Amino acid sequence: MVTETAAVNVMTAEALLKHWQGHRRLTRRTIDAFPEDKLFQFSLGGMRPFADMAWEFIVMAVPIVDGVSTGNWQEYKGAKATTKSEILRVWDAQTVELDTKFPKIPQHRFSEVDKAFDKWEASGLATIQYAIDNEIHHRGQGYVYLRALGIQPPPFWERD
Amino acid sequence: MVTETAAVNVMTAEALLKHWQGHRRLTRRTIDAFPEDKLFQFSLGGMRPFADMAWEFIVMAVPIVDGVSTGNWQEYKGAKATTKSEILRVWDAQTVELDTKFPKIPQHRFSEVDKAFDKWEASGLATIQYAIDNEIHHRGQGYVYLRALGIQPPPFWERD
Repeated sequence: MVTETAAVNVMTAEALLKHWQGHRRLTRRTIDAFPEDKLFQFSLGGMRPFADMAWEFIVMAVPIVDGVSTGNWQEYKGAKATTKSEILRVWDAQTVELDTKFPKIPQHRFSEVDKAFDKWEASGLATIQYAIDNEIHHRGQGYVYLRALGIQPPPFWERD
Repeated sequence: MVTETAAVNVMTAEALLKHWQGHRRLTRRTIDAFPEDKLFQFSLGGMRPFADMAWEFIVMAVPIVDGVSTGNWQEYKGAKATTKSEILRVWDAQTVELDTKFPKIPQHRFSEVDKAFDKWEASGLATIQYAIDNEIHHRGQGYVYLRALGIQPPPFWERD
């Protein structure tokens, strides 16, 4: 990474992964809070059901870390899950995969600009941040679905 | 900041501020997308209207940067805005204030653990991240309100 002499570094790769995994634990609890049928069918304002949003997180997470790490951008290949338990199974497998793959991202790839999936030009860091922010954004929408269903969402501040 | 020899620094304070201000521009557009009455009155699932969420972002932003910077945690003192234009006026004033104050945060305060507002114990970085994540989370909920009102929210990926 090119740093100015005066640059104040505030986050390490390790801290970023920890932050993301904390959010992912909360997202997992949010998925799990939905009754099976509502997860796949309920929505508001013509938006997607939360299962589709959760699946979007999955098709982004490991493929983005692979792409940032290697420069090889491959779309997620697995078949789309059709049950909650299947989503959670893939989710848990990605948790392990992220813990293995993230620490192997070469340092220079965080600042290097690349074209993610041949479409989005950004630094590796910005692309990873986008995945995290997108997860927080849509999970917040899942909270509205849960509230509208009369279900208490998991506490936002709990990440363990 | 105490760093391991092998620590890979991925984000500078400058990049973190830029990231936040990008999100804040999007949040400003989200506030502005609401018709005046809906901003203060519309909600779903028994949740707060979006004006209350936007006000929460305001009472957190500058007070958190002040607290992380100085160790002096002061609640926001201004009177709660009651119109959209008033919210946006305070928002724009905070944008300038953040640009001035954020770069003055002493380096060691990002990693130092403090008790924000005498309540939440975390590093300066974690407290700032919490403010950003909280903004993304609730803004996502504002998107559901807008969709339910038949209003197209601003594109999530545009931050300029």
